[in-house]
Amino acid sequence: MADYDLHHHGDREVGDGLVDLAVNVRLPEPPEWLRRELAEALGDLAAYPDPTAATEAVAARHGRRPDDVLVTAGAAEAFTLLATAFRDRNAVVVHPQFTEPEAALRAAGHEPRRVVLRPDFTLDPALVPEDADLVFAGNPTNPTSVLHPAATLEALLRPGRVVVVDEAFLDAVPGEPESLAGKALPGLVVLRSLTKTWGIAGLRAGYLLAEPDVVRRLKAVQPPWSASTLAARAVVACCRPAALDEADKLAIAAERDRERLVAGLRELGVEVLGEPRAPFVLVKIPGAQGIRERLREQGYAVRRGDTFPGLDGDHLRLAVRDEATTTAFLRVLARLLPA
Amino acid sequence: MADYDLHHHGDREVGDGLVDLAVNVRLPEPPEWLRRELAEALGDLAAYPDPTAATEAVAARHGRRPDDVLVTAGAAEAFTLLATAFRDRNAVVVHPQFTEPEAALRAAGHEPRRVVLRPDFTLDPALVPEDADLVFAGNPTNPTSVLHPAATLEALLRPGRVVVVDEAFLDAVPGEPESLAGKALPGLVVLRSLTKTWGIAGLRAGYLLAEPDVVRRLKAVQPPWSASTLAARAVVACCRPAALDEADKLAIAAERDRERLVAGLRELGVEVLGEPRAPFVLVKIPGAQGIRERLREQGYAVRRGDTFPGLDGDHLRLAVRDEATTTAFLRVLARLLPA
Repeated sequence: MADYDLHHHGDREVGDGLVDLAVNVRLPEPPEWLRRELAEALGDLAAYPDPTAATEAVAARHGRRPDDVLVTAGAAEAFTLLATAFRDRNAVVVHPQFTEPEAALRAAGHEPRRVVLRPDFTLDPALVPEDADLVFAGNPTNPTSVLHPAATLEALLRPGRVVVVDEAFLDAVPGEPESLAGKALPGLVVLRSLTKTWGIAGLRAGYLLAEPDVVRRLKAVQPPWSASTLAARAVVACCRPAALDEADKLAIAAERDRERLVAGLRELGVEVLGEPRAPFVLVKIPGAQGIRERLREQGYAVRRGDTFPGLDGDHLRLAVRDEATTTAFLRVLARLLPA
Repeated sequence: MADYDLHHHGDREVGDGLVDLAVNVRLPEPPEWLRRELAEALGDLAAYPDPTAATEAVAARHGRRPDDVLVTAGAAEAFTLLATAFRDRNAVVVHPQFTEPEAALRAAGHEPRRVVLRPDFTLDPALVPEDADLVFAGNPTNPTSVLHPAATLEALLRPGRVVVVDEAFLDAVPGEPESLAGKALPGLVVLRSLTKTWGIAGLRAGYLLAEPDVVRRLKAVQPPWSASTLAARAVVACCRPAALDEADKLAIAAERDRERLVAGLRELGVEVLGEPRAPFVLVKIPGAQGIRERLREQGYAVRRGDTFPGLDGDHLRLAVRDEATTTAFLRVLARLLPA
């Protein structure tokens, strides 16, 4: 059943001086205020990491209690903790989505079932089998860019079921609509990442929000000091009101950039799937794999779609970039499309 | 059987302006050259971590092949990976030692057996049950400071058995005697940490050396991008010949500092256990717990011994510090000892 390369990620597609439309990180480097703060923290590295301040900052940002928060070494670690702590559960992954939840489940010995949504990728809670008691969904979903209604995700909750909502990209949607991060609901686990908005994929900083019981179970299988001192510092910094304002402004700008990309793609007759809400779009082009290779020759890296369960060689994921990059990209793409 | 608080570590004993003889980190902050290198790397954080350069640096440092190396988020992550990848093994932990191996084993569902060495903590390979096929030992051992002969540890190897040697403190012993890091032996796993020598406990940087098959199994359960960009950069920097030279000089200085501490303790009639070779010593004092509390009142944090299997309330671990700190500490300790 591991029929897709679940370990393939956009970072494998970049390099060689290519213009990167493959990786979903929005800033080319962390903003100056964050970089300064991290540089200051370099003097504090002799001490073991202490996540207390980060935990409290996350709780305050989302109106939760500190006991509801676990700071993690990126969202990737959270998937491993969930797969390990809930080893005996019947896991279901809603696809297409980020492949790490399924990869982490398999690494921990699970044989997760797949619920594969069809375009336009609307999530019907009835599609998830009743006996599933560990369910993974993304919101907005990578790579479809679709934002599910909060009510739909809440409808997945059942007594005895853990529902994991990966909100790694939700701070890239203006106003963070449909977020469940502030809701303390039994069985609900919400994941967040700082990686994409703040240009710190290399730092491994994220967190999750859940009931205290679930947090305790996950903490019990987390290696000690897992979130580094710098990751914890970044969490504190990025939870400040000024950072949240800036994230919202970035999200609004990304929305305009996305609209420009989508309009351009549609002008070229390229099918954009779903209703994109995140800073990337999923497109379907017959022979997309060949186009992807020719784009590389022309200096552009885009994300292949065929490693996502439910997608195939006709799918590509395109990161939203600034106007100049998008315009130049569309010009190159136009020449490569079948007449 | 989880009768000891395996999650207690020295970092919980410091704070409140106490002079820290509890935590086994030797530098108060990373050296200037390392801090500068890490500061430069802050501009590269937007990209996902890539452990390739760090892997190659480790291989070159120890005369191994890159396939023998796994870069980890500190040694703590390595214990979790081992406990997870070798879930069905019969685990044995040689105590007293760092409690994280046993804690990680328990978190992963193991019920490890303990081989408890008696002072002077000589390791007799015959003490380890023949059916044990996942064995953990430390060298030099935390908290006993005892360095086992390499031949003794090699004698633990058996077909089908994995022997994990935690060499987290070996770079603090001049010349790194008795190291197995350079030996590619079937079943041997050697752990290393950069944390203690370089004042970067907060960064989470370490690595392990093993057969390629074992490395692959551990990698399969490691969350992707687990070692951060900064951790990878630190590994590269600390594997350079100049850094290795500096580490050896620090180790020689620490040896002198330890001899001074040990001599001072013995002058006070304090029993120093084993033959200390690491930058910390284990002492036995009747009523040590009370003395530890009074030391706190006097401004000194030392590490309690009773959380280590095989030790009890009469044991304390003391970190080796510079001459001034040691002298001042011994003066305070002298007043607190029973007449």
